[in-house]
Amino acid sequence: MHRFFIPSEWIRQSRVSLTDEPAHQIIHVLRLKPKDHIILLDNSGWEYEVEIDQMSPGLIQGRVIGQGLGATEPRVKVTLYQALLKAEKFEFILQKGVELGVSAFVPFVSERCVVRKPGENKLARWRKIIQEAAEQSGRALLPALHPVATFREASDSAHGASILLWEEERSLSLSRILKGPPFQASPTFNVFIGPEGGFPPAEVAYAESRGIVPVSLGHRILRAETAGLAVVVALLYERGEFG
Amino acid sequence: MHRFFIPSEWIRQSRVSLTDEPAHQIIHVLRLKPKDHIILLDNSGWEYEVEIDQMSPGLIQGRVIGQGLGATEPRVKVTLYQALLKAEKFEFILQKGVELGVSAFVPFVSERCVVRKPGENKLARWRKIIQEAAEQSGRALLPALHPVATFREASDSAHGASILLWEEERSLSLSRILKGPPFQASPTFNVFIGPEGGFPPAEVAYAESRGIVPVSLGHRILRAETAGLAVVVALLYERGEFG
Repeated sequence: MHRFFIPSEWIRQSRVSLTDEPAHQIIHVLRLKPKDHIILLDNSGWEYEVEIDQMSPGLIQGRVIGQGLGATEPRVKVTLYQALLKAEKFEFILQKGVELGVSAFVPFVSERCVVRKPGENKLARWRKIIQEAAEQSGRALLPALHPVATFREASDSAHGASILLWEEERSLSLSRILKGPPFQASPTFNVFIGPEGGFPPAEVAYAESRGIVPVSLGHRILRAETAGLAVVVALLYERGEFG
Repeated sequence: MHRFFIPSEWIRQSRVSLTDEPAHQIIHVLRLKPKDHIILLDNSGWEYEVEIDQMSPGLIQGRVIGQGLGATEPRVKVTLYQALLKAEKFEFILQKGVELGVSAFVPFVSERCVVRKPGENKLARWRKIIQEAAEQSGRALLPALHPVATFREASDSAHGASILLWEEERSLSLSRILKGPPFQASPTFNVFIGPEGGFPPAEVAYAESRGIVPVSLGHRILRAETAGLAVVVALLYERGEFG
């Protein structure tokens, strides 16, 4: 069944009114009809099954015929702190990260970043990518996109279990960190991934001063956009979130 | 240092002659000079450090100044049986799969595949993607690309520990399979990933008759190209291959 994140005020008691993009999708792209069912999500964690009963140009109405708590959210909340990357790579990270179970994204500018801070158009596009991926992959909560930060701001904002992937780290492996205290049972996790050129030692030192632990991902050299997803999968797998 | 897979006959004793694409890359793209060093790989598992000594149009000569066994190959050999996907998705799987540590790819045609069998041009492009990803990620062996098979041929050819990712599987999880006998210690692993529309039950039944185990990847719905990579990461992480 097709899923749509909507503003919570679109649902009043058991009546639903949809306009804007969801209405456009339902009428013109999916070509649904009265009596078809859809799932609405108001980002509360609840899922509402809705039967469409009236359709007019730009407005769809229906009624809630069932509701339940979504069961697809990982129990561990992963925030991916991702240095800005070239456009298609950053968008790839957002899309795949949402599918895999990332709860929030913090884009940041690192010393070796070669791309500029995104303008409002690009941020809107990123939010759309996140929303579509969340709808398609069955997420019950919409992952947050935080404002673009500097590396220091990002490091300062990371509380609790935090790791930074560093290709020059030789001794401390991801699995050792994930399997041992205190990270083993942490309900939240912050993962820092650098830009194409990696982190300079000064940034790693600053991160360490904030309690962020540099870890290695083994022998192969992963591209920036692959590394982040590999860490997210490993982390969620370690916590039993991949079945 | 830049890495190049080359035919083994280009290395004779300690002398090396490079032509074709590697020579072009070195001269025109990387603009290396005599006395620069490169790493050559002849797909034997050995890595040869070479100092360039002569350069002329289309021909580079050098001498081997050191050799060692590559340390980047995973100890577990993963063969990714991947149903044909739309072009950019299939290419994405090849590139990321090589980076992450896949040893061989078997493209196959499944009932719900919507793309045609690739022609020779596309196969050449796929081999190039694999080679470039192997060079960039520091692989010591070039992952194999097997001919496109039917689903039955692919299933018949999969010996040893074999799993098939099925979104309708509810009971058997990936981690249960990976952590238990007999798969726990298997030195090889075959992973079957379907096309965009998934596997039909008849194909799953056939795979099961060949000893291939359908497994679930949990609650979220992953795109075909994300699912394969998630399984590869989980499998290699479980085996200690991500540091």
